[in-house]
This record gives sequence, C-alpha cells and structure tokens, in this order.
Amino acid sequence: MADNSAPIGVFDSGVGGLTVVRALMERLPHESIIYFGDTARVPYGIKSVPTIEHFSEQIIDFLVGEGVKLLIVACNTMAAVASATILRRAAGVPVLDVIEAGSRAAVKISPNGAIGVIGTPTTINSNAYARRIHELDSSIRVFSQACPLFVPLVEEGWLDHPVTRLTANEYLKPVLAEQVDSLVLGCTHYPLLKAMLRDVAGPRVRLVDSALTTADLAADCLRQQDLARQAGAAPAYRFCVTDIPLRFQTIGERFLGRSLGRIEKVDW
Amino acid sequence: MADNSAPIGVFDSGVGGLTVVRALMERLPHESIIYFGDTARVPYGIKSVPTIEHFSEQIIDFLVGEGVKLLIVACNTMAAVASATILRRAAGVPVLDVIEAGSRAAVKISPNGAIGVIGTPTTINSNAYARRIHELDSSIRVFSQACPLFVPLVEEGWLDHPVTRLTANEYLKPVLAEQVDSLVLGCTHYPLLKAMLRDVAGPRVRLVDSALTTADLAADCLRQQDLARQAGAAPAYRFCVTDIPLRFQTIGERFLGRSLGRIEKVDW
Repeated sequence: MADNSAPIGVFDSGVGGLTVVRALMERLPHESIIYFGDTARVPYGIKSVPTIEHFSEQIIDFLVGEGVKLLIVACNTMAAVASATILRRAAGVPVLDVIEAGSRAAVKISPNGAIGVIGTPTTINSNAYARRIHELDSSIRVFSQACPLFVPLVEEGWLDHPVTRLTANEYLKPVLAEQVDSLVLGCTHYPLLKAMLRDVAGPRVRLVDSALTTADLAADCLRQQDLARQAGAAPAYRFCVTDIPLRFQTIGERFLGRSLGRIEKVDW
Repeated sequence: MADNSAPIGVFDSGVGGLTVVRALMERLPHESIIYFGDTARVPYGIKSVPTIEHFSEQIIDFLVGEGVKLLIVACNTMAAVASATILRRAAGVPVLDVIEAGSRAAVKISPNGAIGVIGTPTTINSNAYARRIHELDSSIRVFSQACPLFVPLVEEGWLDHPVTRLTANEYLKPVLAEQVDSLVLGCTHYPLLKAMLRDVAGPRVRLVDSALTTADLAADCLRQQDLARQAGAAPAYRFCVTDIPLRFQTIGERFLGRSLGRIEKVDW
C-alpha cells in the first residue's frame, strides 16, 4: 500500500526538469520531491531509442528503490520514445509525463482546432505530441517544429538576446503561418524563453508551459488516487545527479528559481 | 616493437574528431585509421574532470587493445583536462593532441605575438591553449573566448546563416579588438565554420585549423619515430562508436567529407 508521505520522483536527462520541480513546489507545497538528473549522459535527444530506454530503466529502478509514490517523466525525449518501457518498469507506481500534460492542456484551449508544438529534434521526430493530441481529439490540426538551438541558447543565458529572437522568428514562422490557437513548449528548457516567445508569437497565440501543466496533472492524480500528503507537513527535497559539472549549481538554480541546497552524486 | 602497418587511433567524444580523420586521410593516404567516438555520452564539455578522465581511460584501453601505433586525441575537451591521464594510460604508445598541434602552428604564424583562441567553455576555462602557447613562447599574449553556441549551430547545419554570423560577431568582437595575428579554431567542429569565420575575422587574421595542424604533426611524429607505413599500401578505415543515433550518418559524413562506410557499435 502506498505511503502518502512518500516523495514524488521527478526525472530528466539533465537540469531541464527542474522547471517541473519548481512548478510542483508552488502547486503542491507539502509534497516531498526526489529529483534525478542524468547529468553524466545528458543530452538524450541525440541518442538512439534503445540507449534511451536502457538509461530510463536504470533511473526508474533507482527512484522506485527510493520508495516514490508517483513518477513524473520531466524529459520530453524519454516521454516521447521510452514511455512504454518506463510504464512496464515502474512496477505499479503511477507515471505521469510532460507530453500527456502538455497535450491535454493544449486541446482545452484551442477552440479553432490548430495547435503548434515546438521541441528538440528527437521529440518532434517521434511525433509523440501529435499522436497524443489526435487521441484526445482527432479533428485537431497539429503543426510541429524542431528548435535544436533553443536548449543551447537557454544554457548560454541568452534568454532575450537578438540572436535568440532571430532564431525564434525563423523557427516559428511556418507554425505561426498556420494561425495556431496555442503553442506547446515541448521541452523543459523552453519556459525560460516564455516572455520572448510570447512576443514573437503575438497575443493571439496561447502558450502551453508543460512544467505548469504537469504540476496541475500531478495534483489531479494525487487527489484521484488518494495519495496527497496532508497539509502542514514540511516537504523534503533531494537532488540526485550522475555528475556534478562546474556550472551545474548556476544553471540548476536558474531553472529552479531558488537555491538547490545539497546535491547528491549517484554512481551506478 | 611497433608494427608500421598498425593503424592510427583517433578518438573524440562524438563526431567532431572526424574533421581530424579527414585531414589525416588527405595528409597520410597510406595510413590505416581506427576512429572512436563516444556518441552515447557526448558531449564531454559539460561534464566534470573526474568523469572525463574515467571515460578517456576506457577509450585508451579499447584503442591500445586494438594495437594502434599512435594515439591522436581529437577532442579539445579531453586534451584540455585529461592529457596526463591519457599519457599514463597509453602504455608507451605515442600520443598527440589537437591542443599541442594548434598551439605550435599558431606560435609560428604570429609575428606580432598576439593569438586568439576560441573553443567550448570547458576548453577555454581549462586555459590549456594559453598554457601550452606560453610554454612555447612566454612573450605571446593570448586572448581566449568561449563560443558555446558554435557546436549546436554546426550540428544544425547553419554554417553560413545570419544567426551564425550574428553570434560570431558577438563572440569574436573582444578578441578581434586585440589585433590578434591568428585565431586558433580550438574545437573540432569549427573547421566547418572556417569560410564564415574568415569573413568575420577579416584578411589580417590567419586562422589555425587544428584538424590540418594535427595531421601535419602526426606526419612529423611518424617520420621521426620511423613508424610511417610504406607508400602504396591500401589503408583500412574503421569507425567505432558507443551509440548510433538517427542523424549520425548524415552529420558524420558532413564532417568527414565522404562516405563513412560500415560503422561498428562498441558496447562497454
């Protein structure tokens, strides 16, 4: 039987998933969280499916071993190509992911039935958002665009730089030409570009921040499965990574929006 | 005793080192080559020193086990932070690296004693080029600049795109203001940006392509150590990687400038 005071396990290939942790801390302030970032092998987006599946299994085994009550896949790449593997390996622990959350939210706010999706090449090539959106509503038109430079631009800290705007104009042009109702930020790095993307996309297009939508979906899931922790309990946060590179603290805190505290290094 | 018909071992964290293989194929057309790219764990530039050392040891063990007569570190990050580890592990096999080659070449063509160096953040922060250049000539002034967006721009194929030019202008501005004689392309991806960088740097600045200079240094080393293969022998090329992602063939062939042929996947 699940223990309501057990932590939520959130995982990603690197630091990007900390935007999801930040949204969870705000949406569910009593819940404890264990974050796992595979920083020794990041990024996954340029790796093959069997390799990503193998890495995902190792992470699930670690988090299930830590007794988490809910698993959140905060990595679009893993959610896109390894979700069946993750579900099988989770041994009955409920699993949510950013693609499910972003797809549901976008469908709700797209009255004219046109959704744009941006993400890394692996996420876009997997077609996972379009597939999930069409399962929810087969009449919706989905326009997808890979934006491979956005992650390095965010990590460079050029959040509102002329180079980033020029890049965004080029990437978004074909999607915006389709008069989309909403634009799904299908990568956990992209919430940091939200202000600039809102400018480029214009006021008619609603942005779907999958960190926020994932936190909403997690809250629903805990309530439905009667797994929520009681109000008033003090949450504990742990941050586990497979490597601690020089800039981890700086970049990590930019994503989390607060101090990371102690970081634990996990050796396989 | 070394076997002159044995292959040269060239290694990198990913595909970038193929620019060095390309230069070697042209400079030393009789030599056989084994290339090793650690594509399952690329990029190294964002990882910690102990992790990079550990990965380097595994690669050296593999190539020494394959009987190579010369080891070429075609990865600026490994050369910058793990060269002592690599030398120790090489068990007597001679070792050359891109930093040694680029530094020697730049010193020769910088009469006014001012050299610019561009590379990834890890390479630049390691200060390895400046240190090596100062060992060769302590009077030279070295101006270094990290260019973290160049690798993703090359991998996006934006080799002469307005975004790449704008980025190059911004990165090179402080270095060019110092009236440098030469500019070392301290990353194996950068030779693909050479035409654009030549424009941005202007005709007064000589570019040092460390793929070409490494091939020159390898030719010198083989001659001096009497390790060159006899002319007329047909070379054999092997390409070993730890992962074969979707775009490997495309990107790899852009770097190599010809077909890759059969690619072998190595499992640790």
